[in-house]
Amino acid sequence: MTDTLDPGIAARLRRDADGLIAAVVRDHASGEVLMLAWMDDEALHRTLTTGRATYWSRSRRRYWVKGETSGHHQRVRAAALDCDGDAVLLSVEQHGPACHTGARSCFHHDLPVTPEPAR
Amino acid sequence: MTDTLDPGIAARLRRDADGLIAAVVRDHASGEVLMLAWMDDEALHRTLTTGRATYWSRSRRRYWVKGETSGHHQRVRAAALDCDGDAVLLSVEQHGPACHTGARSCFHHDLPVTPEPAR
Repeated sequence: MTDTLDPGIAARLRRDADGLIAAVVRDHASGEVLMLAWMDDEALHRTLTTGRATYWSRSRRRYWVKGETSGHHQRVRAAALDCDGDAVLLSVEQHGPACHTGARSCFHHDLPVTPEPAR
Repeated sequence: MTDTLDPGIAARLRRDADGLIAAVVRDHASGEVLMLAWMDDEALHRTLTTGRATYWSRSRRRYWVKGETSGHHQRVRAAALDCDGDAVLLSVEQHGPACHTGARSCFHHDLPVTPEPAR
């Protein structure tokens, strides 16, 4: 393990004003989208080199190994960067629910959508 | 259609320094994660009230109806906000490839992951 993110990967990242990219997390087996979290270079480096999903908490302003308090950790099976480098997709083995509310996925507040009229 | 995002939804959003939330887009039929884009309140409002996925382009600094130039538009079938309001998950009917490169999904640059040691 090296100390910093691979320069070839770092060069591909397009970070926001806070130096972060989005991490989309899906269940490796079912494909279900479980959550979205944030990563700086160091969080991505730790995730790729340890196989444990590690994020940057925007609210707490610190690194956060998923499951460190809840036990609901994520073993990373695969990772892929998107075409413009502002998001990474992690495929994980999710132990327990992904959401701090106890829900399996964090995306559980449905919003109303007006269907596009037929054309 | 009202002119602005429903205040009840707006109150749930937790925006970044640029006023944006992340939009994770998956294929309604297959569940495949296709792309990640960005939305401000207005983009979310337009998406929910027209049924056509509409984003904020961070690089071009303007609204962008997916497919307006490529024809590869997205009909939104469902939308859900996550538990902390910084991301929305869209389930879409994707016409053509989602990625501007012609790939079905934007997440096609695999990153190496060191597996977590067995414990």
